[in-house]
Amino acid sequence: MSDSLELFALDGIPEVAPGDDLSEIMLHSAEHRSIQMGDIVVITQKIVSKAEGRLLSLRTVRPSEFAIQWAAQWDKDPRMVEVVLRESKRIVRMDHGIMICETKHGFVCANAGVDASNVSGEDVVCLLPEDPDASAMKISQALSKALGFTVPVVITDSFGRPWRKGIINIAIGAAQLAIFADYRGKVDTGGHELRVTVLAIADEIASAAELLSRKLDKRPVVIVRGYMWESAAGSAQELVMPPEQDMFR
Amino acid sequence: MSDSLELFALDGIPEVAPGDDLSEIMLHSAEHRSIQMGDIVVITQKIVSKAEGRLLSLRTVRPSEFAIQWAAQWDKDPRMVEVVLRESKRIVRMDHGIMICETKHGFVCANAGVDASNVSGEDVVCLLPEDPDASAMKISQALSKALGFTVPVVITDSFGRPWRKGIINIAIGAAQLAIFADYRGKVDTGGHELRVTVLAIADEIASAAELLSRKLDKRPVVIVRGYMWESAAGSAQELVMPPEQDMFR
Repeated sequence: MSDSLELFALDGIPEVAPGDDLSEIMLHSAEHRSIQMGDIVVITQKIVSKAEGRLLSLRTVRPSEFAIQWAAQWDKDPRMVEVVLRESKRIVRMDHGIMICETKHGFVCANAGVDASNVSGEDVVCLLPEDPDASAMKISQALSKALGFTVPVVITDSFGRPWRKGIINIAIGAAQLAIFADYRGKVDTGGHELRVTVLAIADEIASAAELLSRKLDKRPVVIVRGYMWESAAGSAQELVMPPEQDMFR
Repeated sequence: MSDSLELFALDGIPEVAPGDDLSEIMLHSAEHRSIQMGDIVVITQKIVSKAEGRLLSLRTVRPSEFAIQWAAQWDKDPRMVEVVLRESKRIVRMDHGIMICETKHGFVCANAGVDASNVSGEDVVCLLPEDPDASAMKISQALSKALGFTVPVVITDSFGRPWRKGIINIAIGAAQLAIFADYRGKVDTGGHELRVTVLAIADEIASAAELLSRKLDKRPVVIVRGYMWESAAGSAQELVMPPEQDMFR
């Protein structure tokens, strides 16, 4: 059990371009305030996508008839609508110009995670990483090798959710830490068994880090220090609820 | 913008009983590591409910025919089912012995937040505070008066959610801080307007605190230090999404 947690942003992360090595950038940026054993590295999706070249010029996109029609109805860019459709496995809802999508990874979010903010270049949009768990593992392995100890990595994005206003940061990729804290079968201080107490700590870590990274600032990497994470392969895919088990859907 | 965040649990919080003054308990517990100006106090719902006497002996509950019937079908305690129904405004889903409810506050969660864990006494269950915002304000005002500066308070509970496995901590009550960080109309580093970027930071603060409080430990109060909160009346009721605006529902 941790006594206290410290979170701080890694300063000096430059604008990231396709092909950049994020672990190299982080190791360089961390010179003054280095990553220590036990730290978790939390990275926003945007720089991972940029480094992986998950950028798309809308000028190369030819929208389908369906995309053109719907875009016209809601005054949207039909090329953007087309990209969102291509990034989706399923449209959950489509109304008032908003598309709630299930991405190919199984995440449910607005516009399938396709985003034009914080991207340089006109008509360029940013897509989610193709395999955010693999992205996290790659960065984690590079950092772990360079530093000589295991460095868990969580990749985050901000999603809306039903019933509640506002977006919150959640985990879309993870490597080298247990993403759940599972208390099932354990007994509380009153002697009762804690039955449905599986905490999605990877999501909670993502939310905690967002308090420092914020949207308008160039603070895409946050270090979480002092959390007693459990060692595991780690995968944000485990957070995706199979529809047949989903009582909230 | 904060440079770093520190979170720590207030040690030495005793077992809370109906009628206890939580602000007094916290001020006493905080003697060695006091609450400072700028700190946010994050409190789990359970001790707030206990202090407010929101405990109910199931022995006093006479279940309705409907509760008896449904409980028998899923091997549940009909008295518990009855209490959950009474605490609900609406049943969102009811299957496999699980009840997803909209509480009278408008929160959607399992069992309307009624919980038997970490409660002493046989057949005693704990209900959510009647008005968690008022509970937060009362504690905030008492702490602020005693300490001579504003102490924002967030009251939390752990809820499940659609599409994702595991529960996460969210805010069910808040006082004296802005619960959203609203970036609408602001411009990102690439010159794009951030359109739908309203972050539910009260929920993110709740999740961050959970990383320290955890379920099995007597750590119901966590201090968040270093977050640049905005002053506001604050209310977790603002987090409840009106159904007609809810694109995720």
